[in-house]
Amino acid sequence: MASEPAPISFARGAPSLDIVDVDGLRAAAARAFANDPAGTTAYGTSIGYRPLRAWIAEKHGVAPEQVLVTNGSMQADAFLFEVLVEEGDVVIVEKPTYDRTLLSLRSRGADLRPIDLLEDGIDVGGVEALIAEGAKPRLAHLIPNFQNPAGYTLSEPKRRALLALAAEHGITLFEDDPYVELRFSGEPLPTMLSLDEADKVVYASSFSKTVCPGIRVGYLVGPEKLIARIAKLATNTYISPNMVAQSIVNEFCRGGAFETSIATVKAALGERASALCAALRRELPEARFVEPEGGYFLWVELPEGTDGDALFTAAAERGVQIVKGTDFLLEGGENACRLAYSGVSVPQIEEGVGRLAGAYRSISVAA
Amino acid sequence: MASEPAPISFARGAPSLDIVDVDGLRAAAARAFANDPAGTTAYGTSIGYRPLRAWIAEKHGVAPEQVLVTNGSMQADAFLFEVLVEEGDVVIVEKPTYDRTLLSLRSRGADLRPIDLLEDGIDVGGVEALIAEGAKPRLAHLIPNFQNPAGYTLSEPKRRALLALAAEHGITLFEDDPYVELRFSGEPLPTMLSLDEADKVVYASSFSKTVCPGIRVGYLVGPEKLIARIAKLATNTYISPNMVAQSIVNEFCRGGAFETSIATVKAALGERASALCAALRRELPEARFVEPEGGYFLWVELPEGTDGDALFTAAAERGVQIVKGTDFLLEGGENACRLAYSGVSVPQIEEGVGRLAGAYRSISVAA
Repeated sequence: MASEPAPISFARGAPSLDIVDVDGLRAAAARAFANDPAGTTAYGTSIGYRPLRAWIAEKHGVAPEQVLVTNGSMQADAFLFEVLVEEGDVVIVEKPTYDRTLLSLRSRGADLRPIDLLEDGIDVGGVEALIAEGAKPRLAHLIPNFQNPAGYTLSEPKRRALLALAAEHGITLFEDDPYVELRFSGEPLPTMLSLDEADKVVYASSFSKTVCPGIRVGYLVGPEKLIARIAKLATNTYISPNMVAQSIVNEFCRGGAFETSIATVKAALGERASALCAALRRELPEARFVEPEGGYFLWVELPEGTDGDALFTAAAERGVQIVKGTDFLLEGGENACRLAYSGVSVPQIEEGVGRLAGAYRSISVAA
Repeated sequence: MASEPAPISFARGAPSLDIVDVDGLRAAAARAFANDPAGTTAYGTSIGYRPLRAWIAEKHGVAPEQVLVTNGSMQADAFLFEVLVEEGDVVIVEKPTYDRTLLSLRSRGADLRPIDLLEDGIDVGGVEALIAEGAKPRLAHLIPNFQNPAGYTLSEPKRRALLALAAEHGITLFEDDPYVELRFSGEPLPTMLSLDEADKVVYASSFSKTVCPGIRVGYLVGPEKLIARIAKLATNTYISPNMVAQSIVNEFCRGGAFETSIATVKAALGERASALCAALRRELPEARFVEPEGGYFLWVELPEGTDGDALFTAAAERGVQIVKGTDFLLEGGENACRLAYSGVSVPQIEEGVGRLAGAYRSISVAA
């Protein structure tokens, strides 16, 4: 009997262990307990560990009162949605977008309005048309850099156009930006937060992609009053977030490991993205995609009529995990899939794309 | 101008830094990153860090599938209430009880039915009377050991009586037990979880009082199906709890620091409780209280007609923080207060009780 091929996962948006700075984390933990034993071990308050909050505030050029540090940015999203989104509220989402955001907003009864995501970001004309039709969006959820699942980035003119629309129509822009530090080619763009003059942006990011996911530290930046409301909700939910973890992140960031860790991660991601694109062009020329400039993900569209469920199953049979395109859309996406290259080595990518191409051939022949 | 007296807080239910094993935590953190770098730094899943989950399961003699490890036990409560408590559900609470539990249940629209807490625990006759009147309690929230705020402990016969009522009337008993390890006199009692034969108990505890509060690690133990439902809710809320913190706790527990830390904490708490009771008998003989056998808190009742608001203010003016009795009750408690002795040294206790007695004299004279 032939042995099963070793599984290769393009499914999980998570880093491989070799690009996590474990030694840096261990050293940061030792410093956290040595330098601030009281602050690290005590309850603290729901706004988070104060020195880290101050570091984040300085990084974004805002007052500390505009920052709330949470147990991962998903928890930040959950708090924000609980405060801002009521049953029936119109919420703009990108199409496609992160499946957990869709789930979370749907569970709150939001009236979701997906707007096409183009290669330079959300279709601003689509947003304008929605407003022209009389919709009153409360919130727009946007992943501006290296979007999940598409890998696309919102252009600067579109960032400015969205800010103008938000100011004019009273829309809160939720700038969900966990991948911002992971640009491995091209030039960084200003955050909408930094361009906002009308207090319309709430910004979220995370240390999951720059320190490690298991540390579960994320944050929100926004208008002071809104942050105070969310801080109260956070107190009632969990008293305070993890002080030990936030103190470790604080030491990691202030001790310089943050920059070296990002450099390691970006170099690896750039190499993996190139390898993935090259392998797809070689092995699966039917695949259409935009070569990403950063982040974890590649969105692959296969010819119209491709059965995504069958592709998923055929790939799994060959030991390759992918995520179906349909997971990121309320409807459609049958001929698409998301490939995460963050957790796989270059040899795994080459082997994995070979298997994926085999899976595609098998379902194309069958059809 | 006379200098302000140094503040003394009997308000916060938290340990003083001298009884936190900071060196043990630092060593546990180093081992966590060294022994399991992958498990410590990766996302993990919502059930928590598996080795710690296994340790907790073994401690309670249950299957790991019955355990969910969370970001502190307040978060565990929030998940449990979200799954079990609907608007209008009858929920039994102790009178008095932990203020945050009242707040959390009230915000879910629970129909709260406070039942008197006696020196040997909740008035079981009161629970029976409530049921006899036709109420159909969905849940009973109980803090069995060294209750917050009263410091009282539920007797074993009452534990068995509550289990029988729960089985007969389909009531879920929420055994909220963060102080169980902190018994400094008397004999430990079996948990209701361990006596339950009808799958009616959901048990919560925490490492806040045995490791440190800033680590934010708590857990639920309950019927496997219920735990699976809560795990799904946890996934949708935050993907996974803090793996770094849970891996540190795992190393702390498995490396033996858990036992030595508990011994340190218990010795200090026993000494502080004795000092507090002795000082009260000496300085404020009007105070009625039950000398606690463990935990953090002493519930002090002053003569009927004492104005608790005035006492709170007069104490604060003398640099002593207490918590008003009214905070722990839907109504009543004006002549009571909660004194936490967990965060104060013996000299602070003696000085603080002197000031509190002065505050009491000042409002008694005024009245």
